[in-house]
Amino acid sequence: MLLSQLGELGLLAELEARGLIVGVEHDAAVVGDGLVATQDALVEGVHFRFDWIDWRALGFRAAAVNLSDLAASGAAPEVLLVTLAVPGSTRAADVIAFYEGIAETGVPVVGGDTTASDVVLVSVTALGRSDRVPGRAGARPGDLLVVTGPLGAAGAAFRAGGYAVPPLRLEEGRALARRAHALLDISDGLAVDAAHIARRSGVRCVLELDAVPLAEGATIGDLAFGEDFELLAAVEDPEGFAVVGRVEEGDGVVTLYAGEPYELRGWEHFTAG
Amino acid sequence: MLLSQLGELGLLAELEARGLIVGVEHDAAVVGDGLVATQDALVEGVHFRFDWIDWRALGFRAAAVNLSDLAASGAAPEVLLVTLAVPGSTRAADVIAFYEGIAETGVPVVGGDTTASDVVLVSVTALGRSDRVPGRAGARPGDLLVVTGPLGAAGAAFRAGGYAVPPLRLEEGRALARRAHALLDISDGLAVDAAHIARRSGVRCVLELDAVPLAEGATIGDLAFGEDFELLAAVEDPEGFAVVGRVEEGDGVVTLYAGEPYELRGWEHFTAG
Repeated sequence: MLLSQLGELGLLAELEARGLIVGVEHDAAVVGDGLVATQDALVEGVHFRFDWIDWRALGFRAAAVNLSDLAASGAAPEVLLVTLAVPGSTRAADVIAFYEGIAETGVPVVGGDTTASDVVLVSVTALGRSDRVPGRAGARPGDLLVVTGPLGAAGAAFRAGGYAVPPLRLEEGRALARRAHALLDISDGLAVDAAHIARRSGVRCVLELDAVPLAEGATIGDLAFGEDFELLAAVEDPEGFAVVGRVEEGDGVVTLYAGEPYELRGWEHFTAG
Repeated sequence: MLLSQLGELGLLAELEARGLIVGVEHDAAVVGDGLVATQDALVEGVHFRFDWIDWRALGFRAAAVNLSDLAASGAAPEVLLVTLAVPGSTRAADVIAFYEGIAETGVPVVGGDTTASDVVLVSVTALGRSDRVPGRAGARPGDLLVVTGPLGAAGAAFRAGGYAVPPLRLEEGRALARRAHALLDISDGLAVDAAHIARRSGVRCVLELDAVPLAEGATIGDLAFGEDFELLAAVEDPEGFAVVGRVEEGDGVVTLYAGEPYELRGWEHFTAG
């Protein structure tokens, strides 16, 4: 079977079943002593293209998507490790701009690797500390589903030929981690990410799309794009955050608009690629 | 200026001078509380080609090159994070073999990312704990330079159209870390890696190439290839390890064969690529 048939989630499930990877239900790995670690990669031509983003924005983005996973773990970031694979013909000034973009996040780069490659690939590891990592498996019937900000900015920006600047929801993540039953960041699309919670928690997530706060210029369809990097949490008390749905007994995700079923499709790397 | 002109070391120096990265004198970053972290990438066509290595061996290698950096930090490994970028047309069985190769190291994979890419790229982060990280800056005139095993296997294997299996020198690394003034792993070639110690310590490293234990089939010329992943240490007491040179006042690296100057050239990623 090819990866494009198995899918990213199918692959992870297969690796987990064989004991080759562990603990993939969290956005970040809990390493011990409250230490959490996350690693995400951006590949030129797959996750970004240079006619849509400059080097500095790429640096910020590469760091931010990892810091978003720390936020979803309720962690305060400590350090970054950055691997940058670039053609030897790349201008040094561009690489410096890339690291300046990372520095905008305020988290120091303490290691990593630079290496040659035909396409640009960035892999960032973020390490941080968290008192409590809710994970995805604790949502309960009766919980409300909340988000930390407007969604759809990434999809709207993509339709306009660009990328939205990812938000950094570190403070919100720490606040939610103290009380959320489940917490993750919206990287695959609202419905797909809600499905992660539903599957791991053994519950049904009901999303009310007309209650979702939309970013400027965004449509409901943009909710399927993913990469918004806002946080989605299952909580008893939604105070301070926008309610976008609820948790029920059952399984899967139900998406409603004005109370009627409405299909939202998600973003799957291998089948999309 | 292009990266191919500036070189990898020049780039790191430039980034460090601007405060954009910190602490690059160690193989692994010291994150705090004895935690050390390292990240290295392997890119298809740059670091490996599939007619020379299979997926399982690639997995072991990707983990081992990072564990070598932990060994050079005197660390006991705890977990790995693995990012694998592969074409969607890759067979799932190959990816599983890749993770089986990683599992041969005995260190669990607790996170990471799988993503689409035209070429295969692997980025691994290894986290471990160390009581003492000697680094590269502490070598003193009068120290002896020792290595943990025979060198040249990687160069000899490359000449034969393949890759040597990297050794795991974790136990030796912890033993040396307790007493070494400087410690690193030989990834760039003996002379280039000795130059790292010389520069950071403000000393001269004198290498006696005729004293270097060679791997089966290896020649002196293979010492310039790098990727041997044995450890190089500056110690007062060489007990248990092969002495390959000494530390003197001065700067740079002097390579001698039978007491006469003998030029060894190293491996530089961007100028080579």
